[in-house]
Amino acid sequence: MPRLKTPKGFLLSTAGADIKEPRRDIKEPERDDLALILSEEEANVAATFTTNKIKGEPVKLNIRRIRRGTGRAVVINSGNANVCTGRNGAGDALEMSSIAARALGIPEETVFVCSTGIIGVRLPMGRMRPRIKKLARDAGGATLMDAARAIMTTDRFPKLATRTVTAGGKKGTIAAICKGAGMIEPKMATMLCFIMTDLAVQKGSLKRVLKEAVGKSFNRLTVDGCTSTSDTVIIMANGALGNTELKEGSRGFLAFKHAVEDITLKLARMVARDGEGATKAVQVVIKGARTAAEAERAARAVANSNLVKTALYGADPNWGRLMAQLGGSGIEIDAEKTDIYFGPVKVARNGLSTGKNKEARRALNKNDVTVTIDLKLGRHTASVLTCDLTEDYVRVNSEYTT
Amino acid sequence: MPRLKTPKGFLLSTAGADIKEPRRDIKEPERDDLALILSEEEANVAATFTTNKIKGEPVKLNIRRIRRGTGRAVVINSGNANVCTGRNGAGDALEMSSIAARALGIPEETVFVCSTGIIGVRLPMGRMRPRIKKLARDAGGATLMDAARAIMTTDRFPKLATRTVTAGGKKGTIAAICKGAGMIEPKMATMLCFIMTDLAVQKGSLKRVLKEAVGKSFNRLTVDGCTSTSDTVIIMANGALGNTELKEGSRGFLAFKHAVEDITLKLARMVARDGEGATKAVQVVIKGARTAAEAERAARAVANSNLVKTALYGADPNWGRLMAQLGGSGIEIDAEKTDIYFGPVKVARNGLSTGKNKEARRALNKNDVTVTIDLKLGRHTASVLTCDLTEDYVRVNSEYTT
Repeated sequence: MPRLKTPKGFLLSTAGADIKEPRRDIKEPERDDLALILSEEEANVAATFTTNKIKGEPVKLNIRRIRRGTGRAVVINSGNANVCTGRNGAGDALEMSSIAARALGIPEETVFVCSTGIIGVRLPMGRMRPRIKKLARDAGGATLMDAARAIMTTDRFPKLATRTVTAGGKKGTIAAICKGAGMIEPKMATMLCFIMTDLAVQKGSLKRVLKEAVGKSFNRLTVDGCTSTSDTVIIMANGALGNTELKEGSRGFLAFKHAVEDITLKLARMVARDGEGATKAVQVVIKGARTAAEAERAARAVANSNLVKTALYGADPNWGRLMAQLGGSGIEIDAEKTDIYFGPVKVARNGLSTGKNKEARRALNKNDVTVTIDLKLGRHTASVLTCDLTEDYVRVNSEYTT
Repeated sequence: MPRLKTPKGFLLSTAGADIKEPRRDIKEPERDDLALILSEEEANVAATFTTNKIKGEPVKLNIRRIRRGTGRAVVINSGNANVCTGRNGAGDALEMSSIAARALGIPEETVFVCSTGIIGVRLPMGRMRPRIKKLARDAGGATLMDAARAIMTTDRFPKLATRTVTAGGKKGTIAAICKGAGMIEPKMATMLCFIMTDLAVQKGSLKRVLKEAVGKSFNRLTVDGCTSTSDTVIIMANGALGNTELKEGSRGFLAFKHAVEDITLKLARMVARDGEGATKAVQVVIKGARTAAEAERAARAVANSNLVKTALYGADPNWGRLMAQLGGSGIEIDAEKTDIYFGPVKVARNGLSTGKNKEARRALNKNDVTVTIDLKLGRHTASVLTCDLTEDYVRVNSEYTT
C-alpha cells in the first residue's frame, strides 16, 4: 500500500495504557491509546489550536512551544483530554513530554503533547509512564494506520490521507492522521490532526499553508455545533527528502499547498461521515448571500439544526425546516426569492413547493447529500460539511462516561 | 373543576378537519384540529409574534390586525402552519377569518388566525370551510381542555393554566391554553398561547403586561434551538366581569400582572417538560456573569448543546461538556473560578472535579433537574428552561411528514 507510506525520516509507535478505563487485572490493554510521532531530524512545525476559551493543558503547553517553529516529536493519547485538571494536569502534560524527551534523548521543548477524551479527569500517569517509555523504545515499529487507530475515541474508522509532491525532481510524501467524531465544530482550528512531510518547507510558508488549508476544511465542518477544548492540527516538515526548502514563489510550492489542502479536506469529509451516529455525510451550500459572513452564518445555522439533521436522517424532504432555520438565523432573507435543492432536485422555487417530494426523497436516500440554498440576494457563497442526527448520536452521548 | 373554568363572556368550540392527513374515506376525523375562541363583547387584545424573518401567513395577518388593540375571536388550526405558501396561503388565512366572521356575524378585522404544523404545504381549505362554519355554530360547546387538545401537534399532553384575581371586590378569571413541543426557541415571542380574561384591562397596560410576562417565560425557553415561523401569544381581556378597567397604578393591577406571569411561566415549564422526546425538564441557571447578555448567552449555549442534553438524558455527570460549551460560547470565563452544580450537588469547584459523581448521578436521575453554573466574574444571572435530548426526539423528527 504505497499510498499509506510514512514520509522519510518519521518514526511512529503506539502503545496501550487503558487510559479511558482503568483495569484491575494485569492483562494487556485491549487497544492502543498512545502514539508517538518522531522526526529523526528537527522539523519545521506549524500548528493551529482551538479557539475555545477553556483549553486543554496540552494545548496550553503546545501554544508555548510552537513559537520556536521547530520540533522533533508529538506524544498523543486518547481516552482523556487532560482539560479542567488544573495545575496537576499541567504537570501531567509536562511530564508526558519530559518522559518522552528523556527516553528519546531529545530536548524537552521539542516535544508536543496532545490528549483527547473525557474532560475533568486526571490522566492515569501511573499506567502511562512505562508506556510512554515503551513508545520511545519502539519508535519506527508502527504504521500510519496503527497511529491513526491509537488516537481514535468515538471514531468508527481511522482517518488518514497521503499525497506525493515532486520538488526539485524529488518525490516527497505528505501523510496525515486525524481523529474526530463528536464535539466537532472547529473554529480557526480543528480536532486532532497530524500532518508529516519529508519535504523541506520554510517556516513562515508552512504556517500560512496550514492556516489556509484548515480554513477551507476543518473550519468548515460541524458535527454537533460543539467546539472542543483540545482541537489541534500540527504539521511537521523535516526536509528528509533533501529538496531545496519550499516557500511562496518557489517551484513545487503550489503543488505542496494544494496537496495539503486536498489532504485536510479529505480528512474533514471523513470526520463528517464519521460524525457520532451519522448515516450520511452532508454538504450544505449557500449561494446568493449578501455577504460572505451571512453565507457562512446561514450554512452553519442549517448544518447545526437538529430539525434539519433529523429530517435528513429520515430522508424527509421537509424543506420548510430549512426556511425556518434560515429565517431565524439573523441573516437577510426574502422567502419569495429563496430556492432549495436536495441533491439535484429543486424542492422550493421562490419560497414555494415545487411538489417534487418523491424525487427529493430519492436524492436524500443516499450516503452523500448536498443541500443547496440559493438566497438570490447577492453573490457570496459558503459551504459547510456536516452529517445527519440519529438515535445513535443520542445513544453514544448519553452513556455513562464516568 | 373550578381551576379550568373558561372566563366569563368567552365561548369556545372545536372541530376536526383532518388537516394534517387527508383521508379518502368519509369517516369522522380522528381528532379535533380546529378551535375557536370567541369573546361575546369586543375585548382589548395584545399579542407578541415570532421574530423569525420567515413568518407564517396567519402571523402576517395578525400583525396587521393587532394594531387596533381590540378583537372578538381567534380561529386556530393545527397540522399545517400555512408558512411558505405565498399569495395563495395569504388568501387562505384571510378566508379562514372571513368564513368565521360571516358565520359569527362580526367584523372580519376582529378575527385573528393562528396555524401550526408543517411548513410549505397549502391548507386543505376544501375540508376546512364547512368545519369553520361548524365552529361558529358550536361556539360555547367546548371546554378549555377541548381547545387545548385541538391545538396540539407533537405535544404529548394539553397545556392549560388558570388563575383568579380579585379586582374591585369581584373575582376575575385568567385562563390560558398553549401548545408547543418542537421547533422551540422563542425569541421575543413564543409558540401558540391564548390567554383569556374576563377582567377589564386598559389596552396599553395589557400590552406591557404581556410583553414582560413573555420575556420572563417563553423567551427563556428552548427545546431545540429552532425558532418557529408561527410563534404567537394572544391575550384577550373582555371586561365581562364589570370591574373598573385595570391599568398600572390601579388596585388589583399588580395581582393581575403576577397572575399572567405565573400562568405564562407555568405553561413555559409545561412546554419544556413536553419537549419532543424529552424525559426531563431542565433549568439552566447562570450566576456571576459579567453582564446580563453574557449570562443569557451562556445559559442558552448550555441549554442548546446536544452534548449536554444527551448527558442529562443519560444522567451522566459529565460536567466537562458544560465547561467546553461555556468556553466555546464567546462569553468571558475563567476555568479556575467556575463552579458547577447538578441539582444541589457541586460537581466542579474552581474548574476542578469534586469527585461527587455518584451523588450527582442521583441528582440527575430526577424528572426535574436544575443545572447551576457560577462563573464568579460578576453579579448577573440568567435562567433558561429546556429538556434533555433523547432517541425519541430523533424518531419524532425523522419520520416522514410529507
